[in-house]
Amino acid sequence: MEVTRKNFKEALPLVSESIEEADFLVIDAEFTGLIDGRDVSMFDSPEEYYLTLLNGSTQFLLIQFGLCAFIWDEKMKKYRNHAYNFYLFPRGRPGYDKMFVCQSSSLEFLALQGFDFNKLFRDGISYMTEPIETKLREQLTERQKSYSNDKGTITIPDEYKAQIEEICTKVGAFVKENKSNEMEVDRCNAFVRRLLFQELGSRFKNDVFLETKVFENKDRILKVTRLSSSDERKNKDDERKEKEWEDLEEAIGFSKIARLISQSGKLVIGHNMLLDLLHTLNHFFQPLPVDYSSFKEFAHCMFPRVLDTKYMSSLPPFKDKLTSSILQHLLVTLSQRPFSMPEIDSVDGRGYRQTPHKQHEAGYDAYVTGLCFLSMHAHLARMRGEGSGRVTADSVQLRPFLNKVFLAKTAHQESPFMNLAGDDPSPSRDHVFHLTFPKDWQKNEITQLFSAYGQILVQFLDDTSALIALSRRDLAKTVIRAFANNKKVVLVPFIKYKERNAKELQLQAIQGREESSPVYVKVNEPDASQTNEGVDCIDLGSPVKRRRSSSLSTPDKKLVRKRTSSGIFQVEESEPPPKRPEIPEMEPEGEKTREIQTNGGRKVSEEKKKEKAASLKKKDKEMRKEKMVLDKFDSKSTSQCVEAFKESDCWD
Amino acid sequence: MEVTRKNFKEALPLVSESIEEADFLVIDAEFTGLIDGRDVSMFDSPEEYYLTLLNGSTQFLLIQFGLCAFIWDEKMKKYRNHAYNFYLFPRGRPGYDKMFVCQSSSLEFLALQGFDFNKLFRDGISYMTEPIETKLREQLTERQKSYSNDKGTITIPDEYKAQIEEICTKVGAFVKENKSNEMEVDRCNAFVRRLLFQELGSRFKNDVFLETKVFENKDRILKVTRLSSSDERKNKDDERKEKEWEDLEEAIGFSKIARLISQSGKLVIGHNMLLDLLHTLNHFFQPLPVDYSSFKEFAHCMFPRVLDTKYMSSLPPFKDKLTSSILQHLLVTLSQRPFSMPEIDSVDGRGYRQTPHKQHEAGYDAYVTGLCFLSMHAHLARMRGEGSGRVTADSVQLRPFLNKVFLAKTAHQESPFMNLAGDDPSPSRDHVFHLTFPKDWQKNEITQLFSAYGQILVQFLDDTSALIALSRRDLAKTVIRAFANNKKVVLVPFIKYKERNAKELQLQAIQGREESSPVYVKVNEPDASQTNEGVDCIDLGSPVKRRRSSSLSTPDKKLVRKRTSSGIFQVEESEPPPKRPEIPEMEPEGEKTREIQTNGGRKVSEEKKKEKAASLKKKDKEMRKEKMVLDKFDSKSTSQCVEAFKESDCWD
Repeated sequence: MEVTRKNFKEALPLVSESIEEADFLVIDAEFTGLIDGRDVSMFDSPEEYYLTLLNGSTQFLLIQFGLCAFIWDEKMKKYRNHAYNFYLFPRGRPGYDKMFVCQSSSLEFLALQGFDFNKLFRDGISYMTEPIETKLREQLTERQKSYSNDKGTITIPDEYKAQIEEICTKVGAFVKENKSNEMEVDRCNAFVRRLLFQELGSRFKNDVFLETKVFENKDRILKVTRLSSSDERKNKDDERKEKEWEDLEEAIGFSKIARLISQSGKLVIGHNMLLDLLHTLNHFFQPLPVDYSSFKEFAHCMFPRVLDTKYMSSLPPFKDKLTSSILQHLLVTLSQRPFSMPEIDSVDGRGYRQTPHKQHEAGYDAYVTGLCFLSMHAHLARMRGEGSGRVTADSVQLRPFLNKVFLAKTAHQESPFMNLAGDDPSPSRDHVFHLTFPKDWQKNEITQLFSAYGQILVQFLDDTSALIALSRRDLAKTVIRAFANNKKVVLVPFIKYKERNAKELQLQAIQGREESSPVYVKVNEPDASQTNEGVDCIDLGSPVKRRRSSSLSTPDKKLVRKRTSSGIFQVEESEPPPKRPEIPEMEPEGEKTREIQTNGGRKVSEEKKKEKAASLKKKDKEMRKEKMVLDKFDSKSTSQCVEAFKESDCWD
Repeated sequence: MEVTRKNFKEALPLVSESIEEADFLVIDAEFTGLIDGRDVSMFDSPEEYYLTLLNGSTQFLLIQFGLCAFIWDEKMKKYRNHAYNFYLFPRGRPGYDKMFVCQSSSLEFLALQGFDFNKLFRDGISYMTEPIETKLREQLTERQKSYSNDKGTITIPDEYKAQIEEICTKVGAFVKENKSNEMEVDRCNAFVRRLLFQELGSRFKNDVFLETKVFENKDRILKVTRLSSSDERKNKDDERKEKEWEDLEEAIGFSKIARLISQSGKLVIGHNMLLDLLHTLNHFFQPLPVDYSSFKEFAHCMFPRVLDTKYMSSLPPFKDKLTSSILQHLLVTLSQRPFSMPEIDSVDGRGYRQTPHKQHEAGYDAYVTGLCFLSMHAHLARMRGEGSGRVTADSVQLRPFLNKVFLAKTAHQESPFMNLAGDDPSPSRDHVFHLTFPKDWQKNEITQLFSAYGQILVQFLDDTSALIALSRRDLAKTVIRAFANNKKVVLVPFIKYKERNAKELQLQAIQGREESSPVYVKVNEPDASQTNEGVDCIDLGSPVKRRRSSSLSTPDKKLVRKRTSSGIFQVEESEPPPKRPEIPEMEPEGEKTREIQTNGGRKVSEEKKKEKAASLKKKDKEMRKEKMVLDKFDSKSTSQCVEAFKESDCWD
């Protein structure tokens, strides 16, 4: 089901129901770009990996979100899918006018895949983080208060006096003649309209109501409506205020669904899902923290059960049977022996069936990821001699894959995942070095240089530097000594090189975060990791002073999330958030159209929720990202960065 | 006429002919955003104005360029128009993968106006600056040399050995069986394809030709073609190289047309054209210099005759007769008494006629700008008792408007233009102050504070600072003394405040320029103002060492542009540019389809070109920008920035 802002309000209860019923949820997202600036290196630690993406990927926009819910049909003994493909675009009004970065190759790729950018920019659903939501609620409350106050009046500049007088005369005639109930004043610029609001407002206070009418094409005119009584003015004022609150709810938009997914606590599956996860947290919840361990806690708190099919497929018994883990390839391979694809129902037109034309549509890729997961899950079950039907999120056979997010670039160097619920792998890098060499050197000269030390792996960083890994790890110390006096090259152990850069990287991240605030035109988004130093929790934004009267929050308490020894955020009340952090439990027979308000993030309480078994599938953007690496490859000298290819197979 | 990359090659000679025949050219452009970060203040000097836009606007992309050529029909005694609407999108391949910034409100606005973003990203014409072009030519030359060399071989990792061997066996069978001439290898990732190029290439060197086949949707497979002879290999290699050069020419794309406009030296008209001019220079010629006077020289060198209809309409005899200088409003007003709209022909489907549905299409806005210009021109001619027909660029009546680019935000503060061919206005700012005040203050408190000093103009900068202008300039000194000991506020003369910020602004600009180079993945774009300190000229980029054999350039000379006393850049040869800086003169009967090569920028030599009279019209993006100011207005507290409206009418 495609969801845009045109049908979002109707879709929200359906989506909510699907999430509620699902055994597991599969997500996928499309972005305006992948990485800006220097990419992750093959030997980076998960922390460096995170900081690199924080610096280079978070200015891109998330423009499509695919959600596929897999729901067990007990009668048919098979899964049905409910799939949603959301077009997402944070519009400037009533939110903040957002600046974001695009990568030309990404946009071209998506357009060639049939992504509809016209629909995106016209009808995309808006979204915002929780701190921004809080800020906007405050601002609107403040602004509405001031409607009744006198605003400072502007002196009409001489050059406008004639024009203003002429229009006032016309409106005077309109009031007197009493022929029609409306008149329009066109061909005014914004400043003239502002002056007219002031002048007509004071001269014809009890006679007319003034509003700006905005046409579909954004042209604006001033509309003058005759008032029959002063009650009518009050009604119109109230209507206007109510409309502003509705507009704000619409602008919060997709964030509500992201928060529903979080609150469900269900197994969330993705294929090479790191970027999906980062963008989801960063755009719909809170700005990502600069501190890596805070990030892990934050991510695990919001999504306590994730599974990455790319990681799953990289382990036995799948690894050796798959020639490529690009999603489309995976779907083909996992449909053939020794695997078999379970049958999935699509009912009510809410789900997908397999088709070659939907590749790279986020909803469809989520669906395909789900299929791949179910095939792998069934394969594991058969190996264990179990029935291959329903998925249980906490089953033993899924345990090795849970909460491990695949790290494409470093997977071949013994660092294949980021562990959101525990320690990351920390393989030795003693055999890795940073080499600085003369500008005219090519790969041959470098290979020559190391010829006495066995095979090497080279990753070029730029024209004069590269990372070198020895296959003979025992020679690491020898090589350092041997090159100590070499005048052409400088060899530095990788660890030292990284130490030197680590601070710089983190500094960049901090600066980046700070600089990103003007993006939201003068709102200071508090940075989670900074505002909470020493407290080890994630803030909800500025303290809240004002609330909409319809808010569900309890006055005079504030929400604080603290990490417990189990690594889970718990919620204590001490001061209120703008709204309750948790939505009311879904009544099974509840009204389908009510509005779901979900500000305040996920509250991980001990309320028992049926944690149904979940099954798995896969998704893909490999083709795209493979292509992008090729672009880079071609734009450098071909002979140089051959090794870069090694990574290209897995950048998503 | 709409031009995309699908018909660009055919359109190029038509456009060239239109430019050649025109009396004057009108341009307009659409961007992915307007300003990122703090905007120009009402009291900025033209230099500060420039630096602010350099910092805040140049990361946006120019996505549509409208060009309307007005050609005099001597028989009919009226103008014909040839209009072109170019969709522009710099694709990653074979150029650099470009990062650029978007402003969400701008994209939404354009989408609502019917701008086709799908067409843009799929079929937009590519473009690049001259330094990038030079760099790419060098790189391609280098890369093609290396094709014949042995590249370093990669050791096949263990996990890929079985797969590679299996495919090699299949290809071996294909070669032996000799049944078909082609086979395809699919489901390989990029790294596997790279390994196959290496392995198949060495094992079946004389039997097969290998290439990557890219499908429309960017899927890639490896295509294996049987070779009948070694000549066939050579032909295929040559074909491939030729194709790469063609692709590069395509990637230079629209820059050729921008350079044709420049080389024509004709009157170039725009409506509120500063941003159009900045983006045109920055995207198609050279990165904008940080130094303001260098910018003025650069702009004047590239476009020696510009006229801004927004500026023209702001002066007598038009000023008092126009209620709004938004382009659409202007068109209506200038079609009515006392004005009259000359009749314009559109022949051969190459030009526009008036229609309400094309607003904000760059080509149409250029056309409308031309109409407005012609109406104002005719009005001036009638006032002088002259025939109102043909336009002469150097006529006395156009002289007051020439080379003065309108400055929307500062126009009301006595700084209405940037003079590209002379000194800028430098109005006194002695009556202006920078005020810092307590956070809880609103406009009322500030008005109160200054109540003893006459009316004031307030421009809020943020929650605690504003610019204040006294209407009673004589009280400037008094007020400074009076507030010296005020503990709540700090009042600083504007000049001092600006001095403090000027260095910071320029530093930002320099840093911004430096940081912008990684956008082009490791190419260092030399910054004109930096590489030429003391030389006072604009460089063409890196010295050129290699050229394509078909290049027109003369070896061992370099092009240097120096400023002469007349303020015009002249060209001396000392080392060659990658191609001749000037295209050959258009033969009147020359073949229409030949390719026009225009790298190297505009050579302002003394060759006489018929400088036909030019007539004028107008363009518009006011509606859009007006809207944007409103957005900002709404997102602040309404009562605060009332004065901002004063500017909103003219930000384009």
